[in-house]
Amino acid sequence: MPDLNRILLVGSGGVGTMVAFNIEASGLGRVAAVLRSNYTKVLQEGFEIDSCEHGPIKGWRPSEVLKEIPTITDIPWDYIVVVTKNVPDIPPTVTDMIAPAVTPGHTAILLIQNGLNIERPILERFPNNVCLSGISMIGSQEESPGVIKHYDVDVLILGAFRNPNISRDREVASAKRFVGMYTAQCETRCRYVEDVQHSRWEKLVYNTCWNSICTLTDMDTGRIRLTDHAVQTLVRPAMEEIRAAARVHGVNLPAELCDRMLELDPLTMYYQPSMLVDMRKGKFIEVENLIGEPLAAGTTSGVPMPTLNVLYNLLKAKQWATKEKLGMLEIPPGGDYLTQRSFPKHKVHTRPVEEPSL
Amino acid sequence: MPDLNRILLVGSGGVGTMVAFNIEASGLGRVAAVLRSNYTKVLQEGFEIDSCEHGPIKGWRPSEVLKEIPTITDIPWDYIVVVTKNVPDIPPTVTDMIAPAVTPGHTAILLIQNGLNIERPILERFPNNVCLSGISMIGSQEESPGVIKHYDVDVLILGAFRNPNISRDREVASAKRFVGMYTAQCETRCRYVEDVQHSRWEKLVYNTCWNSICTLTDMDTGRIRLTDHAVQTLVRPAMEEIRAAARVHGVNLPAELCDRMLELDPLTMYYQPSMLVDMRKGKFIEVENLIGEPLAAGTTSGVPMPTLNVLYNLLKAKQWATKEKLGMLEIPPGGDYLTQRSFPKHKVHTRPVEEPSL
Repeated sequence: MPDLNRILLVGSGGVGTMVAFNIEASGLGRVAAVLRSNYTKVLQEGFEIDSCEHGPIKGWRPSEVLKEIPTITDIPWDYIVVVTKNVPDIPPTVTDMIAPAVTPGHTAILLIQNGLNIERPILERFPNNVCLSGISMIGSQEESPGVIKHYDVDVLILGAFRNPNISRDREVASAKRFVGMYTAQCETRCRYVEDVQHSRWEKLVYNTCWNSICTLTDMDTGRIRLTDHAVQTLVRPAMEEIRAAARVHGVNLPAELCDRMLELDPLTMYYQPSMLVDMRKGKFIEVENLIGEPLAAGTTSGVPMPTLNVLYNLLKAKQWATKEKLGMLEIPPGGDYLTQRSFPKHKVHTRPVEEPSL
Repeated sequence: MPDLNRILLVGSGGVGTMVAFNIEASGLGRVAAVLRSNYTKVLQEGFEIDSCEHGPIKGWRPSEVLKEIPTITDIPWDYIVVVTKNVPDIPPTVTDMIAPAVTPGHTAILLIQNGLNIERPILERFPNNVCLSGISMIGSQEESPGVIKHYDVDVLILGAFRNPNISRDREVASAKRFVGMYTAQCETRCRYVEDVQHSRWEKLVYNTCWNSICTLTDMDTGRIRLTDHAVQTLVRPAMEEIRAAARVHGVNLPAELCDRMLELDPLTMYYQPSMLVDMRKGKFIEVENLIGEPLAAGTTSGVPMPTLNVLYNLLKAKQWATKEKLGMLEIPPGGDYLTQRSFPKHKVHTRPVEEPSL
């Protein structure tokens, strides 16, 4: 029997909980999950999962339920799997959060997160650790604390980000070991890919464009498609800008991909992309990794991206507004128009107002 | 004593009521005001006005208070003054509304409204009538039905739109007659201008840019300025696009105008432009005349307007969403993700889930 993998899971909501369940079910890994809003509920009653793949499950817990990220002890974590949102513009960053638990040179850090260049701060801080890329296609939501609705098949695309300090063989072995664990019960649901950047750009065609446009209009993908004009003037041009930016970075995405990503969600599903969900809940949005990084990747290489440029700067302003609402910014007092200008306070009419004689 | 001008006022909120008050106070005009939401209140109690220029006024009414636009009788209206929002994409249009009251060849139609090309449907429908352009700089709001807070001086810039079927002299005379009436009590507050398009483009530098960006970010002008990045990446570029579009139409606006329009509102006034106010109230927005028309005017003449193009199409989608919310659109049923895809409903795990032996 192979060694059990010791896994620290950071973020156990809709996606993370199904990752944990899958690993534990394989018999090849043992998961310690760090919970936040659902900690008490799960500690007391376990998760309640309604899964399209695993059926209804009540009272399930991973091997360990933790309230915060533990400091490393003698036994290192083999993998730290991060399934939180990635909002580098709002502290604490992912890197800061996981730092106490990373054993240099040993722990592989798997980011199951969207966006571009998310590995950069990880590789900078942990130059001798493997960093893995996970792109999850699962449909799974935490409908209330500890209650998971897993409604669409769990597909996980996994590979290694390139760390120049580490041999490619070691990276690949680490990625494949995780895939082996994940697929122990079902061959198809986790797939190793050589070129993780290709997969990331591919998913950005969907994620960058739908997330930004749905969030700014406060509309789901189905409604945007029903307008038709917004698809032709915003979604498709934005998708083409992502394709152009990918191309300049050596990632060739076929033109048909845009059509596929335009119609990926059934129209009448009225799907709310994650950024729209976050915005409607008043949470921070993943604007930097989903929009800012691909935009910068393209424009710094001379690719014109006029649509995404405007979308990005509008979303960045909305992020600022969320900071203010959450009390992270102080703004100068004011707001009463009567005190703001030196208005004349006298009457300009000398003549009394009376009924005009007709 | 000159003939009393017979004036039909359409829209008597913050701006329209002060126009009516001013005309009646001059002794040169008699106003019949068509009221909607404030009809009953004003009929019974009159307007309550707190005016920075006229002082506190209680129980004031124009000469006539009407519930709807009257059909023309023997005595024609000399002026129809329209001070409603102008939302040509949502019926009824201004033209349709006023049509029953227009005496062909006699009534001058004064549009105290924002935006570009608002005279086009008027001139098309009433080819033998004078159409006047009013740009109001007043600060005045209806705080509740019939209660007007007039907080910033009443400045009205007035001139004639060019109607090729009418002599320029007649147009100018009609405009100046109105100005004369408006300034009977105070010389400075209404100003005749020869070139109304210049004034309109000038005001668009403020209106097009601040309205669109504040509405899409759900932020007032002060907050946008506090972000700084949004001024540099959105507001200023949009203003420069309006300047370029104006230039191609023979209207030369100085570069300093952008700076002036950027800092027009005191920062800590946290001013909400009218479109933001409308959006927050769930009302339709003046997207076509304020954004769509100047955008089309520029782009059809080859002016690149990438910022305003994106802003316009986002706002147009939001207008669609407002239509849906107000029950003017039917969308196909759907929305439950569980019924939308053919998800596998079986378990893929064959192995029972158990505590892994460590």
